[in-house]
Parts: sequence; structure tokens; C-alpha cells
Amino acid sequence: MRLPPGVTSKDFSDALKQFAEAVGKDWVFSSDDDVALYRDSYTPFWHEEEEPIPSAAVAPNTVEQVQQVVRIANTYKIPLWTISTGKNLAYGGSAPQLSGSVVLDLKRMDRILEVNERNHYALVEPGVSYFDLYQYIHDRGLKVWIDPPDPGWGSLVGNALERGCGFTPMHDHFDAHCGMEVVLANGDIVRTGMGALPNSKTWQQYKYGFGPYVDGIFSQSNFGVVTKMGFWLYPEPEAYFSGNVTVPKRDDVHALVEIFAHLTHSGVVQGTTSVIDMPSFAPPDPQLAALRLSGDTKALEDYLAQKGLGYWSLDLPFYGPAKVVAAQWEYSKEKFSSIPGVRFREVESHRFPLDAEQLAKVRDPVPLGVPSLGVFMNGGPRGHGHMDFSPTLPMTGEAVLEAHAVLDKAYRDLGSPTDAPPGVPVFAFFPRALVILYWIPIEHDVEKNKRSRAIFRGLVKTAAERGWGEYRTHTAFMNDVMDVYSFNNHALRRLHETMKDALDPQGILAPGKNGIWPKHLRKEKA
Amino acid sequence: MRLPPGVTSKDFSDALKQFAEAVGKDWVFSSDDDVALYRDSYTPFWHEEEEPIPSAAVAPNTVEQVQQVVRIANTYKIPLWTISTGKNLAYGGSAPQLSGSVVLDLKRMDRILEVNERNHYALVEPGVSYFDLYQYIHDRGLKVWIDPPDPGWGSLVGNALERGCGFTPMHDHFDAHCGMEVVLANGDIVRTGMGALPNSKTWQQYKYGFGPYVDGIFSQSNFGVVTKMGFWLYPEPEAYFSGNVTVPKRDDVHALVEIFAHLTHSGVVQGTTSVIDMPSFAPPDPQLAALRLSGDTKALEDYLAQKGLGYWSLDLPFYGPAKVVAAQWEYSKEKFSSIPGVRFREVESHRFPLDAEQLAKVRDPVPLGVPSLGVFMNGGPRGHGHMDFSPTLPMTGEAVLEAHAVLDKAYRDLGSPTDAPPGVPVFAFFPRALVILYWIPIEHDVEKNKRSRAIFRGLVKTAAERGWGEYRTHTAFMNDVMDVYSFNNHALRRLHETMKDALDPQGILAPGKNGIWPKHLRKEKA
Repeated sequence: MRLPPGVTSKDFSDALKQFAEAVGKDWVFSSDDDVALYRDSYTPFWHEEEEPIPSAAVAPNTVEQVQQVVRIANTYKIPLWTISTGKNLAYGGSAPQLSGSVVLDLKRMDRILEVNERNHYALVEPGVSYFDLYQYIHDRGLKVWIDPPDPGWGSLVGNALERGCGFTPMHDHFDAHCGMEVVLANGDIVRTGMGALPNSKTWQQYKYGFGPYVDGIFSQSNFGVVTKMGFWLYPEPEAYFSGNVTVPKRDDVHALVEIFAHLTHSGVVQGTTSVIDMPSFAPPDPQLAALRLSGDTKALEDYLAQKGLGYWSLDLPFYGPAKVVAAQWEYSKEKFSSIPGVRFREVESHRFPLDAEQLAKVRDPVPLGVPSLGVFMNGGPRGHGHMDFSPTLPMTGEAVLEAHAVLDKAYRDLGSPTDAPPGVPVFAFFPRALVILYWIPIEHDVEKNKRSRAIFRGLVKTAAERGWGEYRTHTAFMNDVMDVYSFNNHALRRLHETMKDALDPQGILAPGKNGIWPKHLRKEKA
Repeated sequence: MRLPPGVTSKDFSDALKQFAEAVGKDWVFSSDDDVALYRDSYTPFWHEEEEPIPSAAVAPNTVEQVQQVVRIANTYKIPLWTISTGKNLAYGGSAPQLSGSVVLDLKRMDRILEVNERNHYALVEPGVSYFDLYQYIHDRGLKVWIDPPDPGWGSLVGNALERGCGFTPMHDHFDAHCGMEVVLANGDIVRTGMGALPNSKTWQQYKYGFGPYVDGIFSQSNFGVVTKMGFWLYPEPEAYFSGNVTVPKRDDVHALVEIFAHLTHSGVVQGTTSVIDMPSFAPPDPQLAALRLSGDTKALEDYLAQKGLGYWSLDLPFYGPAKVVAAQWEYSKEKFSSIPGVRFREVESHRFPLDAEQLAKVRDPVPLGVPSLGVFMNGGPRGHGHMDFSPTLPMTGEAVLEAHAVLDKAYRDLGSPTDAPPGVPVFAFFPRALVILYWIPIEHDVEKNKRSRAIFRGLVKTAAERGWGEYRTHTAFMNDVMDVYSFNNHALRRLHETMKDALDPQGILAPGKNGIWPKHLRKEKA
């Protein structure tokens, strides 16, 4: 049996006994086989000693049981690594940052506590997946949408706390939350926002409450265990329409992104989209690949034009009343018409609700608020998984071009200098910034993984030098990323550490999460 | 000369000397005349000993000077009360919570550091007022809007930190901020969000940064001194249109609010509005007043109908491309048409930019992003000011009716049992909740003010019993309001206090702000 660092075998075994008393013996897992299920299926440390492996897992069913687990952990100084459904794939899955941590698995806390159709919100526990909530709403015929990410088996709470994104107008998941219940490291239960008012009527309707608005400190953090969370839902819209815009020249990206920024900041476009470069996303074609490698932009533009493709492509999603959506598309076309050679195409158009047959025909249901696992079937890299390098960029064409150049170089450094690099989608997941998702494949090959990790670390630094920072990262790189957020000699990290020491003096909650180590491990680990 | 509590005359005089060395002797104020300017002009403690009066004021010009002031305050344990422009009227103005505090006046820090027209944001210091930023943008002809509250002489930073609101689609001012610079109680400077990345390209474009998102803890708080803050601006829209909806029956409020909630949660309506009850907001009329007092709803409805008025009135504001705005109004009318007897009226319609002459004709420029002091000329209570009782309510008709009943009773308790109560606007300032602003007048009469304060305190409790909590309050009532946010035996306050003790162990920053007292004053004051 593995042990948490610094914990004796006797103490650990006593702690496991007490966990079992708290949550039931069927819900404490310590056999190798059981514990193996909590390893990161796509770890970049495959076959290496460094792979962080939990020592055990404990799965409470209620908030009172979470309190007990936290108190026991404090008694024996057991590090806990909290997961909701454990699907944080590409970012570490269900595995801890610190080897030997006990996974605090909240999957049994899967209650949908309220769905309010009139005021469009839900209150859920961490074990509730997007599929669960969708099913609940669908079964009752409620006229509200959830906002699933790609894929939909993860937890609403987990995804929002990691500040993940979806596609509908509620795509910024942390922003769309309203009210939390949190178990602190000392076992105290706090309700945030209006939840601090007993008998509150607006816990899921007004975010801030009174006094300091604390919710943010529980995201991407190890300051507490979130046990309930409210989410704003989107009223089922009358219609969805998506229109495609292509522009012919490489340098058109400047105008394309600038007009898009104006539209989205104005509220004319409210969903998520991505800026796609056709040289890498067009159907595979040897001539195109050769032209890309040649670096002859003019020839590439001409070739794309001859194939009827643009150089850049952007789908604009519109949600709302049919006549509003139509007017928004019309206006968007007017704005983009200032770019010579721009072309428009209608992509998809729906009126809601869709019946099962209509839904089955939809290319991708996720932007229509319907969770799916389709992402595993198309477009994703296969086999052993990947790590997401995901920096945020300013919403400008310059940044898009610069990012492509940086990532093309990284691709060559990864060891495929003769191929054209794969495409890098540039997402408009967040309201005012772009996010790149650059997939670095994981192999069952120690040397390749070592090189990939070195390149990832190099990318973090290269991006930081350009003023771009990751919005989220794999557990393997949390220290590296936090290191570059170094203004005033790491003042933000000092602030995080001050709060950590005050809120969790024994450092039992998720040591190392997002680069925050408890005092006793700080020197060794950071 | 007044002294801060627990500070010797010698220490205080040494501290003032050091403040003068740090900021220049012209910027330390300690004469009675100077200090009097920092009193709350509309204090509810007029002529009473309890009125909190500062001992001095210090006005730094740079963030380095703020650091020095904070360090000096730590040396001598001087309580500092930070103000930006000091216009937090109805909530305490520029006066501290704790008598004898030194006002840390940031008015000299009035630099507009950046306005980015392409990505629609600004970075400003606390002394920048809405007028200042408007003028800056106007002088350069930039195509971005600010979102002023009523009135416009206050600070963007101060208003956002108090979680104030305006009228355009950027009306939730805290939500519209992006990135902060904060001086902590120990003098350390932290930049939040992407500002923690040196050379960041997205400080004003991506909010969360990496790791715990801490910005919220600096709002309505005493955990730091915010010295810079970014704000998202609204791209100048093509058009503004407002349409009025009236419905004839008292009970129509249920459908009216439900449809409004659907429209605003769908993003069809994006600005601020208010639900107005015509019995109290119609032009003064003795017969109407008599009917209100009679409690005969049917007679009241008939009378209003006969006068061509509805029972409830709602202006819907629309911002954006002209054709989108027109479609949004059309759709809204369709939705409200399910209410029998509903009537629609076009109120205002503009295309931007407006020239000076057009602007001069506008009824109220504030919803068009133009700051004003017009609120002091119309509609506001005169004379000695008022305190705002401002609870948040769920977005339902039931809540509106219940709130009216509660506040009518409070009006009678205030001592005017024979008049019809004044109107109580119910604002949709925040995305998913309603906010009432109930003005309780302040008099130059000790007994009346004592009664008003008792009634205010009673209202806080009455509201809490109904599940409504204040979103913000006057310094005089901060303890009372925080007291009702009492879930789990005041767990949220315990969390605030744990953070306060860690971040400001000597308790020098704004003791008492929002009910958070430093350790050494906690028992005595709370």
C-alpha cells in the first residue's frame, strides 16, 4: 500500500478506518486495483516514477460526510485531492498533483437539488454530470438549456471550478455560476453570495451577497471543497442560426478578428466560435501541404481561392428569437463586407424544441445545449491522449499570426520537421480574449514524453515572454505556469500562500493545486 | 485634534509627519476645517455624538506613495479609510465607519492609463470619475461607451468595488471590470488576473488569470487598496431604442416580470430598467391618492384605465444595430401580448453618434453612456439627503407585491400614516435579480433620525426574514446587514475574519467595512 508523504503506516490505516466509519466501508478504496482507477489514463509520465499516484480514495455521500473526512484528514495530516467526476482529461484526469494523496471523490453527491424554469437556474452537487442535468430537464420538458462542454460526461461543478467553457451564450462556466456551498479545511460549511442569508430567496439569482465576494477563490484552488453550486441556465431560445464567413488573404485575419471582436463585445454574437486557418484545416491534400511548407503566402492564397476555400474561416453562432437572429446575421454580413473577397454561407438553422429525429441529424449537438461524447469520435487525437497547452491571447489578428508561428516552431521541435503542422484552433471561449488549444500528444514512450514535457515547459515560457498566460493547465505543469505569473517577484503567489496558510494551516487540501503548496511542502516542491 | 482610537497623540503626530514626507505636506489634512470636508454631508447622525468623523486625511499621488502610507499606518496602527472620489452618497459618502480613522483619499490618482478602442477597454486609477473618462473618450472621438451610474461624478473604481450599477449593457460594474492592481496591508503590490504575468497582453481582456480568482475579495471589503482597475467598455452601438409596456391589472405584475425575466435572461433586453407601479408614480392626483389609501384594487385599476394609464409600467431598453433593436422590440411585444389589455409605446429612439445639440434634447443622457448630475435636479428627495435601503429580490411578481407591502408599512412606521406612500422603483440592475431602492430621508432632527435608523434596522430584519438581503448599505448599518447573513452561525463572517486576520493582521485597513472588524476591535464593535 502506498502512503501519503510523511504519514506513518499506522496513522494511515487509522485514518482509513475512520474514513470508513464516516462514509461506509464500501466507499473507501485502497486496494491497488481500485486505486489504479484514479490514475490519469493519459498521464504524460507513463512508465515513469514521477507519475503521481493516489494512496487511496474516499467517496462521501453527503456534505456532513465531507466535513467528517476533512476533519479526519486534519487529524492525521492526510492530503486530499478533490475530484467531482474525475473527467478533467488533458489536465490530469482524476489523479492528484502530489503522489500519495487520498482522492476525495464526490461522484456519489449527484443530487440535482433544484431546476427553476421560471428564473432559469439550477442548484447541483459536484457529482452531477452534464448528461445527468440534461436528462433531468429533458424528462420534465423544462424550457431551459444547459451549456455542456466537449465532452459532456464531466461535472458542472468541476468544470466551472476549473473555469472551463462551452458553446452557448452561457459559455463561460465560472461566470455562469451563482452561489456556492463550500466545506473549508477546518470542516466549517460556508454558503457564499445570498446563500449566507438563511432562507434566502436569491441564492441562485444574485451572485455577490454582502461584503467581499469570495467565490472566485474556490476556483482553480485548494482553499475548500465545493459541495453545491448554482448555475444560470439559458432560456430555450426560439432559434439557432450559424453562418460562415471566409476571407481570402492571410492578412485579412486582422480585419476578421477586429470585426468579430466588435460583434461579440456588442452582444450581437453571443456563443463560442473559433478562428480557423484553412491551410491547416482544409481536407488533407499533398499540394496544399507542400505550399504551406514552402512559406509562399501568395501561392497558398491563390491555391485556396482556386479550391473555393478562404484563408480564414469563422462560424458565427446566433441564439434567440428567429427574427433577431436573422437581423444579427444580416448586420454581421454588412460589417464583414468591408473585407474584399469575403464570402458567406449559411451553415445551420434550427427552431426549438427539436424532436429526437431532428436532433439525431444535427452535426454537433453540443452548441445546442445537448451533451455528447462525439468529440472522442471525430477530430481528437487518438490513442494515448494529449496535454492541452492553452494560453489566452488578445483578440487581435496579430496575436493569431504570432501564435501560429510559435506553435509551428514547437511542432518542429516535437520532432516532425518535415510535415506541415496540424491546425491550431483559436477559440473565442471567453468574452474578450482568444484561447488556443494546442494538443501535445502523449505516447507510451518515456523518451518521447520527456521531450514533450520539455517542449510544453518551453512553450509556457515562450508564451509568457510574449505576454500570454495559460488559463488552465495539466497538473504536471502547474508549478511552471504559476512561476510565470511572477509580477512583483511573485506577489500573486505570495497572496495565494497567505490565504492558503490561513484557510488550511495543515495543508490538507489538494497540495500543489495550481502551484499552491502548503507551508511544509513549499520549499521542497515549488 | 481628534485621534484614531488607541493611538497616542505623539504617535499620531509622528505618523502625520511621515505621511507628509511620503505624499508632500500639502496632501495631509488635519485641521478641523479640512477634516470636516470628509464628513458625510448626509449623515443620519446629524448633531449626534455617534457620527463617525475622521481624524485626518492623506492623499497620495502614486502607488508607491500608497505603499508608504500603508507601511506608516502599520507602524503606528493607524486605521485608514480608503475613498476614491468620496461620492458614495446615501451609503456614507467619504466618512469612515470608525471615528478617528484617517481618510486615505485617492483623488489625486486620476490617471487614465489606457483606453483601447479596438478591444474596448480602459485601465484607470481610483481618482478617475465617469466625467473624466467620458471627456477623455469624447475628446479623442473614440467609438466606445462608458457606463455611468446616476450621478456621474463618482469614481469608476469606487463604484465597481461597491458593486454599483449603471444602465447600458455593461451595467453590472463589478462584472464589467477586468484586472486590478492592489496594495495589500503589508505594502505589497499585487496585480490580479493576467496582470500577474509581467508584460501581459490581456490584463484587461481575460479576467481570471491562473489559480484562485481573487478580485472579488477586494470588493465591499477592507482587504487591500485598489490602485488600478480595468473596465470593459461597450462598443458605441448603432442605435438605442426604448419601448414602454403597460399592463392594466395589479395581478398582471406576475406575467409582466416573468416575461421580462425571459427576455433579459435570453439576452434580448440588455440594459437596466425598472418595474414601476403607476398608482404611486403617476402624476400627483388627490383622487388617485385616495383610491390607493382605500385599498380597493378594482377601483384603482378602473381609475387608472380611465386616465389612460396602466397599473404597471416597464421601459425596455435596446442597444445595438438598428435592425436588431427593431427585431428585439417586435419580439418583446409579441411576448407581452399574452397579457390582456397590454399597451405599447415608443419612448426614445437614437442613432449614434449624437451631436451636442441632439444630446441636449435627450431626456436623460445616462442610459446613453453620458454622465450627468441630472439626478439631483429631478426625482431625488431634497434637502438633507437620504439613506438607501436596497435589498435584492427574486425576479418575480410575487416579490414585487410583497416588497411594496413591506415598504408601505415602513412608510407608515416612519410617521406619515395618512399619506399614500411614495413610489418604490424596483430595478433590474443585476442580470437575474431585482433591487429595490427605498429612500429613507435624513433630517436635521435628532429624534427623527433616531426613528429612521430604527426603522432601517427593522427593515433589514424584516427583509432577511423574507429571504431578501441588501446588496450594499450605509456605513451606519454595515454590522446590522452582515449580522443577517448568518448561515451556519455566521460562517461567512468567520471566513471574512480569517482572511482579514491573515491579510491585515494589525487591522489598519478600513475597520468595520461591511461588518469586518479587525481582531482587536471585533468584540467591542461587532
